[in-house]
Amino acid sequence: MLSDGIPYPDVSQALERIESLEEWFDFWAAKGAMYEILGDDALRAGHRVSGGEWLWQAALSFHYAQFMWFHDPVRREEGQRRKVELYNRAAPHLVPAGERVEIAVDDVVLPGFLRLPLGEMPSSGWPCVLLIGGLESTKEESLLFENMCLRRGLATFAFDGPGQGETFFQVKLRPDFERYTSAVVDHLEERAEIDASRLGVLGRSLGGFYALRSAACDSRLGACVAWGFFYDMSDFGSMPEHTQRGFVYVTGREPDEARAYLEDALCLGDVAARLRAPTLLLNGARDPIFPLRQMELVTRALAHAPVETVIEPDGDHCCHNMGQIVRPRMTDWLARTLRVA
Amino acid sequence: MLSDGIPYPDVSQALERIESLEEWFDFWAAKGAMYEILGDDALRAGHRVSGGEWLWQAALSFHYAQFMWFHDPVRREEGQRRKVELYNRAAPHLVPAGERVEIAVDDVVLPGFLRLPLGEMPSSGWPCVLLIGGLESTKEESLLFENMCLRRGLATFAFDGPGQGETFFQVKLRPDFERYTSAVVDHLEERAEIDASRLGVLGRSLGGFYALRSAACDSRLGACVAWGFFYDMSDFGSMPEHTQRGFVYVTGREPDEARAYLEDALCLGDVAARLRAPTLLLNGARDPIFPLRQMELVTRALAHAPVETVIEPDGDHCCHNMGQIVRPRMTDWLARTLRVA
Repeated sequence: MLSDGIPYPDVSQALERIESLEEWFDFWAAKGAMYEILGDDALRAGHRVSGGEWLWQAALSFHYAQFMWFHDPVRREEGQRRKVELYNRAAPHLVPAGERVEIAVDDVVLPGFLRLPLGEMPSSGWPCVLLIGGLESTKEESLLFENMCLRRGLATFAFDGPGQGETFFQVKLRPDFERYTSAVVDHLEERAEIDASRLGVLGRSLGGFYALRSAACDSRLGACVAWGFFYDMSDFGSMPEHTQRGFVYVTGREPDEARAYLEDALCLGDVAARLRAPTLLLNGARDPIFPLRQMELVTRALAHAPVETVIEPDGDHCCHNMGQIVRPRMTDWLARTLRVA
Repeated sequence: MLSDGIPYPDVSQALERIESLEEWFDFWAAKGAMYEILGDDALRAGHRVSGGEWLWQAALSFHYAQFMWFHDPVRREEGQRRKVELYNRAAPHLVPAGERVEIAVDDVVLPGFLRLPLGEMPSSGWPCVLLIGGLESTKEESLLFENMCLRRGLATFAFDGPGQGETFFQVKLRPDFERYTSAVVDHLEERAEIDASRLGVLGRSLGGFYALRSAACDSRLGACVAWGFFYDMSDFGSMPEHTQRGFVYVTGREPDEARAYLEDALCLGDVAARLRAPTLLLNGARDPIFPLRQMELVTRALAHAPVETVIEPDGDHCCHNMGQIVRPRMTDWLARTLRVA
């Protein structure tokens, strides 16, 4: 939460004041409502930067209100919708601004945000990184990561695919996430601001799995980063219970049916050997969700891609406990691989 | 520490690993050394953004290593010097870059960093805020605050005055801090990038006191913000012991002599009525260092300035426990008062 932008005073208050898990949603929703008022007041006074940032803080508070809130789908949906609405209002005021883009895929409207670096655009357009969230992370959560990319001259496109964020309400988890990523690439090819010959994809956790599938299936993606990822669902049984529940939730199916569906839908086996793009794999040796065995399965399967592997001995899931070290490194790797001047 | 940029994983490790206060310096010095290696490696690989940010992280680690480390002046000086050297190397790579400026005042070389917003410069130049640190804070500590100003179109000039940071080794605390601020204003008047008709000053804690003195004595400062400040030293006796020790330290005098010197040197009485610039005063009602009585003394003394007063009922010293709310507000106030487009 801290590495994605929740202020420490809020976390500290939560630890102090929340006595039972039932109070979690209300605590963060109240924070969200407070930041919304600050943001709206700032915008009315003409303070666009604060307006954008406080509305983003409000969105982030609602994001964590509904995080893993599986037992109460009504409030969870309320939290998701508030988050989306608040972030939509924040986006034009962010520095640099976020442009909401909606891409039609079959009967689904795939939402994402495009952000371009400040400064003069290279004549061929900006290189761009597609950002894919995980089981519970969504396009509204990656602002600080985007800022790291943007400072390094990389445009960003964060989107919610099947089963994620607001797209969950249109389409649940599917085995062909890569089709949706390719629709984003199609869109970026049409944008004059983007150099479509320099596209990369980065995904965290379940999104790392999606990034690998996407890059394997679409050769227009010239760089791939996966962090805190897996090869298949063979370790489902040893995952923490709330993670299992999350995986079941995003399928929209009953628990007994969901497990078999997930095992079938989530495996890199059919596409891994097609990956040719330079790929960076990052995991923490202390990841309690995906054991290193999963990383070995991936590296073995990526038979034809130039792969760099980083295992942080002290890193937890996605190395969140050392984000200040691994996040700049991944971003630098992308900037280098996508040849940022 | 967190609001000025120390990553939470480092704070968390410090709480876990540091068993006695004696280990404090070594812990943070080791962090500093680690970030220095990361920064140098990044620069060698051509990753300027990471290079600059990691060297800044290194500087900040050494800053907090020596923070309040009064009992061991040799290591304290070592920490200060490492911080300065690391930040000097970081500055050109920061986004936006920091330019080191050295201004001669008598036989003192006053060091500061000028940073300009990204984007197109207004035809009259950028409005600029002078940032003054407190008893223990220095120009290397304000990067995140500067970034908030810069995103809002305000240039920043952070400097170490008498008794502060590296200037301490040339000149100790003096009653005429405002002369040094005016030397900075003289310099900024010569800079084509700066609109010297739109200068403001912001100071925190002891720096808030300095900001008020400076704005009272130099009418070229058109806006003044003081947060977590005081009117005089009449509450010295009730301050926390380490704060008292800090005040004594920056005088460079023996304790018994220092107290009388401080009482004489640090009072707004002789200049407060001269302040004419719009002024924002911010304090926390729970400040354990400067009681609200001090704020009342200031507001009474500022007889001719348009003053806005904010007292946060739950705020601690400088409202550090609600930085995400008060910091953007002060910055917005400056942007409004200095007429940022």
